[in-house]
Amino acid sequence: MNTDDTKLAPFRKLSPIPAKQVTIDDAFWKPRIAVNHEVTLRHELGQIRETGRLDNFLKAAGRVKGEFRGFFFDDSDVHKWVEAAAWSLGSQPDPALEAELDEVIDAIASAQQPDGYLNSYFTLREPGRRWKDLGMMHELYCAGHLIEAGVAHFEATGKRTLLDVAVRLADCIDGVFGRGKRRGCCGHEEIELALVKLYRATREERYLRLAEFFIDTRGQEPNTFLLEAKELNRPFDPAYCQAHKPVREQTEVVGHAVRAMYLYCAMADVYMETGDASLLDALERLWSHLAFRRTYVTGGIGSSSRNEGFTRDYDLPNESAYAETCASIGSFFWNHRMLLITGAPRFGDVMERALYNAILSGVGLDGKSFFYENPLRSLGGKVRPPWYGCACCPPNIARLLASLSGYVYSQSASGIYVHLYVGSRMQTRLDGAAVTLRQETVYPWDGAVRFTLGLERPGRFGLYLRIPSWCRGASVSVNGKPASGIESEGFVTVTRTWTDGDVLELTLPMGPQRVEASPHVEADFGRLALQRGPLVYCLEEADNGAELFQLSLPASSPVKHSFRKDLLGGVVVLEALAERPDVCGWENRLYRAAAQSGTAPHKITAVPYCCWANRGPGEMLVWLLDAR
Amino acid sequence: MNTDDTKLAPFRKLSPIPAKQVTIDDAFWKPRIAVNHEVTLRHELGQIRETGRLDNFLKAAGRVKGEFRGFFFDDSDVHKWVEAAAWSLGSQPDPALEAELDEVIDAIASAQQPDGYLNSYFTLREPGRRWKDLGMMHELYCAGHLIEAGVAHFEATGKRTLLDVAVRLADCIDGVFGRGKRRGCCGHEEIELALVKLYRATREERYLRLAEFFIDTRGQEPNTFLLEAKELNRPFDPAYCQAHKPVREQTEVVGHAVRAMYLYCAMADVYMETGDASLLDALERLWSHLAFRRTYVTGGIGSSSRNEGFTRDYDLPNESAYAETCASIGSFFWNHRMLLITGAPRFGDVMERALYNAILSGVGLDGKSFFYENPLRSLGGKVRPPWYGCACCPPNIARLLASLSGYVYSQSASGIYVHLYVGSRMQTRLDGAAVTLRQETVYPWDGAVRFTLGLERPGRFGLYLRIPSWCRGASVSVNGKPASGIESEGFVTVTRTWTDGDVLELTLPMGPQRVEASPHVEADFGRLALQRGPLVYCLEEADNGAELFQLSLPASSPVKHSFRKDLLGGVVVLEALAERPDVCGWENRLYRAAAQSGTAPHKITAVPYCCWANRGPGEMLVWLLDAR
Repeated sequence: MNTDDTKLAPFRKLSPIPAKQVTIDDAFWKPRIAVNHEVTLRHELGQIRETGRLDNFLKAAGRVKGEFRGFFFDDSDVHKWVEAAAWSLGSQPDPALEAELDEVIDAIASAQQPDGYLNSYFTLREPGRRWKDLGMMHELYCAGHLIEAGVAHFEATGKRTLLDVAVRLADCIDGVFGRGKRRGCCGHEEIELALVKLYRATREERYLRLAEFFIDTRGQEPNTFLLEAKELNRPFDPAYCQAHKPVREQTEVVGHAVRAMYLYCAMADVYMETGDASLLDALERLWSHLAFRRTYVTGGIGSSSRNEGFTRDYDLPNESAYAETCASIGSFFWNHRMLLITGAPRFGDVMERALYNAILSGVGLDGKSFFYENPLRSLGGKVRPPWYGCACCPPNIARLLASLSGYVYSQSASGIYVHLYVGSRMQTRLDGAAVTLRQETVYPWDGAVRFTLGLERPGRFGLYLRIPSWCRGASVSVNGKPASGIESEGFVTVTRTWTDGDVLELTLPMGPQRVEASPHVEADFGRLALQRGPLVYCLEEADNGAELFQLSLPASSPVKHSFRKDLLGGVVVLEALAERPDVCGWENRLYRAAAQSGTAPHKITAVPYCCWANRGPGEMLVWLLDAR
Repeated sequence: MNTDDTKLAPFRKLSPIPAKQVTIDDAFWKPRIAVNHEVTLRHELGQIRETGRLDNFLKAAGRVKGEFRGFFFDDSDVHKWVEAAAWSLGSQPDPALEAELDEVIDAIASAQQPDGYLNSYFTLREPGRRWKDLGMMHELYCAGHLIEAGVAHFEATGKRTLLDVAVRLADCIDGVFGRGKRRGCCGHEEIELALVKLYRATREERYLRLAEFFIDTRGQEPNTFLLEAKELNRPFDPAYCQAHKPVREQTEVVGHAVRAMYLYCAMADVYMETGDASLLDALERLWSHLAFRRTYVTGGIGSSSRNEGFTRDYDLPNESAYAETCASIGSFFWNHRMLLITGAPRFGDVMERALYNAILSGVGLDGKSFFYENPLRSLGGKVRPPWYGCACCPPNIARLLASLSGYVYSQSASGIYVHLYVGSRMQTRLDGAAVTLRQETVYPWDGAVRFTLGLERPGRFGLYLRIPSWCRGASVSVNGKPASGIESEGFVTVTRTWTDGDVLELTLPMGPQRVEASPHVEADFGRLALQRGPLVYCLEEADNGAELFQLSLPASSPVKHSFRKDLLGGVVVLEALAERPDVCGWENRLYRAAAQSGTAPHKITAVPYCCWANRGPGEMLVWLLDAR
């Protein structure tokens, strides 16, 4: 088994193979992870310094003079950056970055109060109002990100500097909240999943119990958010933070999307520890609702900017799509937990869809420009800024990319699971013997994947390969000979007695596909999206001219793919002959009796959605008219 | 000639035939005008009283104790109601209403200050800040509506009570602003057109000069709005109120749509008096821009709620369409002026389109529920409220309906023009002789219109009948025999020596039409609207079920019309066989590889757009998919 202690998370089918046991070395992800390390982390630290986020801690410590600057939740951006830097250091030593990280951690630690409390906003601005406004002020949310950072820093580097801070902070919180103490939970979920991580890192059960408490309290009558809102004389919509009813009774994903995802992550985490089936039942219901009613084809979720979240079933507008980067990342995290619990590959499918589309869209190819919202249509005015006033997304994507190697594989008593096709080297132990697995592929550009086993001694186990839901006709061979894997429930499984040097080759046929949405989705009705492998494609003005909405794709028009190494760092483009209407005669009119008007063929070139908006301003469109 | 003094408005081709010389008595408009008189005016006065709008004047007069209540521009709603009530009394005596009107006018008059100033907000709340914030505080806008009301009241009833108040207020304003006095103009245009009306009613040239001054000052450097904003330390976008450049240099309609329309009305009014060709040139440019780039098929204008106004060319979203009722009314007013100036029927076409669709949509069939925005798609949540906090639209539509008879006809030295097909009796004088014209029609349900002339003595003149732009194959007959009218530039003109009792019959073929939008309009691309005569149609959930967006209309499907007296007070409906997709198999998925899926025929029933949302909540759709 791997390094995970089996006493932890007993109620999951699969154990993750942690990031540090996996090295990514492929052509698609390795450069992005390198840019994340070399450019993004430094760029973000620069922004953190320039915007006063780091100084806030030093001011709280009395080391720097001045008032708190920024939003009351700005600490959390620093914590997420620390987590990202820690993961990155875990896979790539970098003394300069490590020194900066230590400095940042020192600043954070300096702001900790004698009783363990740590929040630069409250310490500086409202020291007397600690825990007075759980609904709006994100105090426990910030604490959660600090705890996550402390655990990640410890796991990635072995250093306890921030973990100790996290423990003192968690103890401070545990001294206030819990059974027999104060009821209440945070308006922005995060503390819950962080406490389970802290429990796993420290084996202190109080943290697990406190996470459970926060989850159990949420939405119970009397509703603490409403009591608090009454006290503070302001309105509050409990559904905005999933507190409209007890979590086990919830059947629909509602409210702020990031908050929902972090809550569901925590519910999954607690299930893994306690086996409380009522939690898993609720999660399965919520998952189906989200997957079948409220998810963009890119894996983006939360369609409205108004509440940064969910609206109505099938309400998936393209131009005004919010689809916050953080929400897709949250979905990725939650689906990973569901995958570990159940082993069901549909969760891996969602991870893949989000990762290659709505998440990766959140960062520019330059590593220092970002998107908070990820619409599926742009009229041309959307450009990537270098930072946001509310800067949750940039460090969130940095921490995901820095820890991506931890999501590729998992294992069980019966073998090794491959969830993502990412060129990499993995090492683990099965039945006490060392196993290495080399994965070679140019995925997502091609569906051929070659696995080479390195075994201390021969062993009988299964290799479980996820067959993505977009794929038909997957095949495997072992040592060059066709093999008959057992294909069921989204995996092809090859179980045999493996010997050192054995080669398993997987072929995932990857033709360009036309995808249609449910006819209940108004925004996509009569339209199609182009997809190849896990990548959703889009049309950009740079390749296709403006007024992209005028293009329609006949069913008879073949879609061809080709690799263009000159474009966007090297991508497979899709090309086809679409139709474009004759627009003559409209200069001095806006409406007329409908007439048969001509169309002209128009060659279109589609690029991966995740690469959009890297060539200056211009229109973009995912769903084009279906001319069949 | 009619009662207009030819010295007034010398630079117009046509003279309007005023409301009081025309009596509407047809099946379409007469009941609506009756509801406006019986229900709407009383309902609105009730709202005006309940919301404290009337008391604000009495408080300012010291007759009632208390503070100002509501928005700073609420006076204007009362003024518009006064105008509506005055017009209505002009065509239909009603002692009870007249008594109420006199009471309201007395309240308004009581708030007039010794120097003529009248604004209940400033008198009560900020007496020291008169004229300090022209950009935002609508002081001159409110004054303009008072002046319009005073003139209308005088013209409709012969009473000078409010006109005298208006004169004193105008003199007060004239004492502050003008050449050699203070530069500046109002952030919400209205005073300009009101001053021209006051000039025409009183023949006091100072009012015309002041209107000219306000128009000429607008957008000139140094920009008074920006100077003021700097002084007040707040941002201000001059384009929002059409003050980004001098009005004669403007080429695009921008900013707040109602403000733009009222400005253009005033520019047209000043042109009519002065013949300043640079004003007319600008108006023609702006008209083309609005008509060919920024108008909904319903005649609605101003697509965005953000600025209650204009955005980009061809940006005409359906669900989020703002298309404020007041803006369409403003467009109607402006186009009427352009029609009088030029005689060109394209302006009558715009009036007709707006009147029968975007304007009439603004009031419910019950006469006491309204729409401020008039979208072309609703997901079902839009219901007509009985009033609005910002209540400009309800009294605006009331004053238009009450004065509608003034927009049907005009005349010139060469004859009589018919702009709108409205069953009515009109009387005027031509060459010194009394002429009456009886118009009989069930328009807009049918295109047959019969005119009967009543002449004091035979006379040679032309009857100019507008041929709506939607119509092909119009024909005329005189006394039962086909006549060859001269058809040119959108009129059919029959010039002859007419004798008493002559009958002219006009036939406007009125088949259901499929209308398409310019291919530059993304929201309507690949879609069609149904229209018959001047009426744009829509699908409502009450007749067609939900998910209206799934319906597509094949080119081969005939559209039939029939009168349904049971429906919506009696309307012609359009019926056709559309297609609806098979929606089976989508319960547990949201996307799939595009497949040929079946469709089933689905009978659709479309109702006039102007009648939508009169049967409770439900979806509505104007632009349906074109399945050709």
